[in-house]
Amino acid sequence: MITILRIGHRIQRDKRITTHCALVSRAFGADKILIDTLDKKIEETVLSTCKRFGGNFEIKTGIKSKKIIEEWKGTIVHLTMYGEKLDKVVKKIDTKKDILVIVGAEKVPRYIYELADFNISVGNQPHSEVAALAIFLDRVTNGKWINKKFNGKLEIMPCDRGKKVITNE
Amino acid sequence: MITILRIGHRIQRDKRITTHCALVSRAFGADKILIDTLDKKIEETVLSTCKRFGGNFEIKTGIKSKKIIEEWKGTIVHLTMYGEKLDKVVKKIDTKKDILVIVGAEKVPRYIYELADFNISVGNQPHSEVAALAIFLDRVTNGKWINKKFNGKLEIMPCDRGKKVITNE
Repeated sequence: MITILRIGHRIQRDKRITTHCALVSRAFGADKILIDTLDKKIEETVLSTCKRFGGNFEIKTGIKSKKIIEEWKGTIVHLTMYGEKLDKVVKKIDTKKDILVIVGAEKVPRYIYELADFNISVGNQPHSEVAALAIFLDRVTNGKWINKKFNGKLEIMPCDRGKKVITNE
Repeated sequence: MITILRIGHRIQRDKRITTHCALVSRAFGADKILIDTLDKKIEETVLSTCKRFGGNFEIKTGIKSKKIIEEWKGTIVHLTMYGEKLDKVVKKIDTKKDILVIVGAEKVPRYIYELADFNISVGNQPHSEVAALAIFLDRVTNGKWINKKFNGKLEIMPCDRGKKVITNE
């Protein structure tokens, strides 16, 4: 199981970036996102997508991130531009264990670097936690996210022009 | 050369998502981003990153997107959750030609679907244009973005704990 832990979420400033993190988590094969700050609006937005497009993705906001990290049984990955190169480290991650992926907004407390089993960089250039998360999940699932079945009410069929959407009742 | 065209940018609502698109473009091997709405603030933010971290990435805002698309000599790719599957289509893209990658915010005018050579989906689930752009650039560059040299004043060295930053004078 893959759980994403979003820390440092500020309701006003980060609403869209954190929503994108949640939707990327769902689409790229994670099972759950935990967000430190209580934010009912973001829960609604993400659950509304799940309701329409399917899957068993979970979201919980207003959690104690330090407690989650300290009590985690499994592997802890922290995504940071300062970390070790993804392609070097990703094969060391035991995907049979539960994985907690920490995604920070701006500055991250020092203890995260210490408690993580792996501090991993998706390139050492500044870019985006949304992109870092997508590329990390792509690599750790070996690209298998693309074949994940969601069995939603709405299903989009790939198509070379325009839009093809199937509504399942 | 790879150019990103961001359309439908709304200064207040999209400032962070569009900034992330620009930084992802730079980090994942694109050469330039064009943004339809004039937005000097976003230009400053992105150029400040370029100044510190290096590279020749360009940004221009306040451009006529339809004109750019109509006059493009090269290949036009439109990223959309409704498009054909990335992994099926990406090998058809001739990377010796200049590529224009269109990234929309919310609804995209119909003519984009018509004028694009390829409408490509990065998974057919709703997620994030930032993630779609990163995965597309990863695939189209064959993962070579990771070795791109930026020769910036600041250089981050991969490291298993903490932060290691080199300042080049």
